[in-house]
Amino acid sequence: MKVIPLGSRLLIKPIKEERKTEGGIVLPDTAKEKPMKAEVIEVGKDVEDLDIKAGDKVIFSKYAGTEIKIDDEDFIVIDQDDILAKIED
Amino acid sequence: MKVIPLGSRLLIKPIKEERKTEGGIVLPDTAKEKPMKAEVIEVGKDVEDLDIKAGDKVIFSKYAGTEIKIDDEDFIVIDQDDILAKIED
Amino acid sequence: MKVIPLGSRLLIKPIKEERKTEGGIVLPDTAKEKPMKAEVIEVGKDVEDLDIKAGDKVIFSKYAGTEIKIDDEDFIVIDQDDILAKIED
Amino acid sequence: MKVIPLGSRLLIKPIKEERKTEGGIVLPDTAKEKPMKAEVIEVGKDVEDLDIKAGDKVIFSKYAGTEIKIDDEDFIVIDQDDILAKIED
Amino acid sequence: MKVIPLGSRLLIKPIKEERKTEGGIVLPDTAKEKPMKAEVIEVGKDVEDLDIKAGDKVIFSKYAGTEIKIDDEDFIVIDQDDILAKIED
Amino acid sequence: MKVIPLGSRLLIKPIKEERKTEGGIVLPDTAKEKPMKAEVIEVGKDVEDLDIKAGDKVIFSKYAGTEIKIDDEDFIVIDQDDILAKIED
Amino acid sequence: MKVIPLGSRLLIKPIKEERKTEGGIVLPDTAKEKPMKAEVIEVGKDVEDLDIKAGDKVIFSKYAGTEIKIDDEDFIVIDQDDILAKIED
Repeated sequence: MKVIPLGSRLLIKPIKEERKTEGGIVLPDTAKEKPMKAEVIEVGKDVEDLDIKAGDKVIFSKYAGTEIKIDDEDFIVIDQDDILAKIED
Repeated sequence: MKVIPLGSRLLIKPIKEERKTEGGIVLPDTAKEKPMKAEVIEVGKDVEDLDIKAGDKVIFSKYAGTEIKIDDEDFIVIDQDDILAKIED
Repeated sequence: MKVIPLGSRLLIKPIKEERKTEGGIVLPDTAKEKPMKAEVIEVGKDVEDLDIKAGDKVIFSKYAGTEIKIDDEDFIVIDQDDILAKIED
Repeated sequence: MKVIPLGSRLLIKPIKEERKTEGGIVLPDTAKEKPMKAEVIEVGKDVEDLDIKAGDKVIFSKYAGTEIKIDDEDFIVIDQDDILAKIED
Repeated sequence: MKVIPLGSRLLIKPIKEERKTEGGIVLPDTAKEKPMKAEVIEVGKDVEDLDIKAGDKVIFSKYAGTEIKIDDEDFIVIDQDDILAKIED
Repeated sequence: MKVIPLGSRLLIKPIKEERKTEGGIVLPDTAKEKPMKAEVIEVGKDVEDLDIKAGDKVIFSKYAGTEIKIDDEDFIVIDQDDILAKIED
Repeated sequence: MKVIPLGSRLLIKPIKEERKTEGGIVLPDTAKEKPMKAEVIEVGKDVEDLDIKAGDKVIFSKYAGTEIKIDDEDFIVIDQDDILAKIED
């Protein structure tokens, strides 16, 4: 089963991480618009403004997008405008 | 009797599913904007941005669109912007 | 006396129907945006995006438009964007 | 003294009518956006989308526009978008 | 000292008038958006849509614009969109 | 140290003046959107619609813009749209 | 690890400074929209309207943008429109 995001949306998989990691990104609890880290799974065909492809790690606005479950795992369908940044190791 | 959605709208038929299925999509109860699964019945003639046709399975924003009944069955007239993703088996 | 809707508006005549008819469309009571069935009477000259003409049956958003009375009958002046779908028998 | 409406505005003169006339238009009391009948007095030079000229009878949105008095009579300066329909006898 | 309104703004001088004059315009007290009469003093260089020049009498939306005092007299800097009509004697 | 306003913004220095001066501009206390007088210090490179340059005296909307301090003096970074008028002596 | 801001966003690092410095910029406590000083770290590829590059000092709107932590240090992903001014020494 495959979920294909439409228009300028992406399918992303949130990455749960420790609150504070050595050399990692820690996202604040109290920020009104909480960002989160995710892996890009599928990119809608109208996502043309971003240099983003499947497998990329990104930071996104936490309350943006729509949560869905596929095979019991959590995913988010989110618009490209709510992807804030790309993370490169 | 046939209902033809106008402009960029679609006529879709919601698919009721178990809360948790093996290998299926389970949609969360608590999400503020609850997504739902539906089958596309009719596509308005101005729906040009989507790769969507009658028979496709889609995920849509639950509170979007207008519910109607045709021959005692529930349908929804919904704008293409509220179709989040397409599901392929 | 004739009422000609201006711009992209239409003059429609609501069709009152039973709550539940055999093979007919039944519109839900509880939906926040209640749709209704109507017959198109006059089409404004800027209504160009719709395949709608006088005599057509349509579904429209109930709270949209402005109610008027002509010769003691109820009519609605409504924008084309609030016409959701066309009904064909 | 002459009042010339600017841009896409019109100067109209509300027509007071009985609540219920034979073969006339009766406007509902309870509608949230109460329509009213008026005669067009002056048409602003940018009113180009309407087939409306001085002397025409129109239906307009009651709460739209700005009321003014000229020589002790009531007039309304109103935008063309708030003219809903034209009445022909 | 000269005040030059910028962009599509005008400098106008409100005309105080009796509540009810013979053959004059009387502006209602109770209207939510109270119109007022003024003389145009200066016209901004981007005011191109109006047939308005210094010396013209106009009706404007009372709560629009910004009041200033020049040499102890009251003036208003107001956008052209808030000038409703021109008055000709 | 130099502060260069970006885009269509200007750096201005508010001019404090007496409430009521002979032949000067006095700005009202009670106006909802209080205007103020300022001197233009720096003009952003996208400020193209205005005939405004460093040294000019202007009237601006008081609550618009962002106050900053440079070397203990008050300045405001403000968008060109919030500059209402230019003052010439 | 590198964070690359997407679209018209920038990655900036806030500069904490004393409330009042000799010849420095002091930002007011009470301003509704508190500005802050930051160093630009990364510039998104669609940031084309600004004359801003990595290493520049800028003033930005405090409540704009999204706070993130990279290797235990505070950064902000912010849209170019929320960068108010550039500081040159």
